Amino acid sequence: MSADTKTIAFVVFPGLTPLDLVGPLQVLGMLEYLRPEEYRVAVVAERIEAYETDAVLKIVPSHTFADVPAPDVVVVPGGATPAFRAMTDETLLGYLREASAHAEITASVCSGSLLLGAAGLMKGRRATTHWTAFELLPEFGIIPVRQRWVEDGPMLTAAGVSAGIDMGLHLVSRLAGDEIARMAQFGTEYDPEPPLGPLDWSSAPREFFAPAAVSWVTDGLAERPELRDRLVAWL
Amino acid sequence: MSADTKTIAFVVFPGLTPLDLVGPLQVLGMLEYLRPEEYRVAVVAERIEAYETDAVLKIVPSHTFADVPAPDVVVVPGGATPAFRAMTDETLLGYLREASAHAEITASVCSGSLLLGAAGLMKGRRATTHWTAFELLPEFGIIPVRQRWVEDGPMLTAAGVSAGIDMGLHLVSRLAGDEIARMAQFGTEYDPEPPLGPLDWSSAPREFFAPAAVSWVTDGLAERPELRDRLVAWL
Repeated sequence: MSADTKTIAFVVFPGLTPLDLVGPLQVLGMLEYLRPEEYRVAVVAERIEAYETDAVLKIVPSHTFADVPAPDVVVVPGGATPAFRAMTDETLLGYLREASAHAEITASVCSGSLLLGAAGLMKGRRATTHWTAFELLPEFGIIPVRQRWVEDGPMLTAAGVSAGIDMGLHLVSRLAGDEIARMAQFGTEYDPEPPLGPLDWSSAPREFFAPAAVSWVTDGLAERPELRDRLVAWL
Repeated sequence: MSADTKTIAFVVFPGLTPLDLVGPLQVLGMLEYLRPEEYRVAVVAERIEAYETDAVLKIVPSHTFADVPAPDVVVVPGGATPAFRAMTDETLLGYLREASAHAEITASVCSGSLLLGAAGLMKGRRATTHWTAFELLPEFGIIPVRQRWVEDGPMLTAAGVSAGIDMGLHLVSRLAGDEIARMAQFGTEYDPEPPLGPLDWSSAPREFFAPAAVSWVTDGLAERPELRDRLVAWL
């Protein structure tokens, strides 16, 4: 690692969706493997301890926020209820503001874009999020764009959960070029073949997920009733 | 959770590739979310402690091998050097044998199929693995099949890393039907859009990865020179 090594920081908060984090982490980890002098990856949180996720495993970050105050790239995963709860975590929001102010690229996966919105970083930006939370984007001054990933200046947001892999590969292309991105794609053998084919959005189970989205907001923001009510009004 | 609840156990060993684990875990976690009375997911390891991965984060399992001796489904992730080192871990191999003997389905991602092979569970089975390790399959009596995932009786193996997501969705279909698998696909918003398109296998960087595969075997099996030499001979 040289003095010019760029740091890519993945942000951890309690209860996050681990695939939001691990998808792009594995892809950007290939960038670090292929170009170790130029890039290093860190997983950052308030403390180095085991954090719950919305799966049964816990994850332990590699660094604290204080260790990595000025990353070159910051990537924010999302979650369900815990992502809305995280909107009340001033330490986390403060880190997102500080890191993003320095970073060349601020990226998110899933409801991570809403977290960046809650930190005040998305006003007037084009962005996306998980499809079930898409209607919430305007509350944070975001111009909603329905794409797998959306780029607007330094802000790079991905759709839900698995979209972080596509976004991560795009990010590798942007940082290091298509040839390295292709190597990262071969390394992770990302040659998708969904058994039931691509999603048919005309048959999306909106009725099933709509009440879930309301409960994520309501439960996550119980202590912030004003924001809770403004968000629920969009759903 | 009722007495009839089926347990899906994801196996952790030191140094695994986290996307191998977290891809199918997130998908099968949707099955647990949608059918909580029928399925529960566990992440199992020898001990409940923080395990290194080949990314910078560590993961903490939810249960020990002793807690979940007889899962209904067992899923084994892979890795690079650490997956070969794991072939010398008799506690792990013993758990794989015991769990697989009881399980309705034994699944793997990436080099996880080689680990199942090292446990003696794959003789005469059709299976796949990460493309860089594909030539090693016959050493374990496996009939190599180049597909995204391969089913042979109770054995269900996936290709490299991200293939675990596709295999996981197929596994949900097999357990609970296509309708639930489609819900899991919507929940994880798995509608892949690789920025550079599908992999072009005619231009696979074989020259780059071939020495890496040799080093994974050589480093991982330093203490088992006979198996090391037999495997290297295939590469």
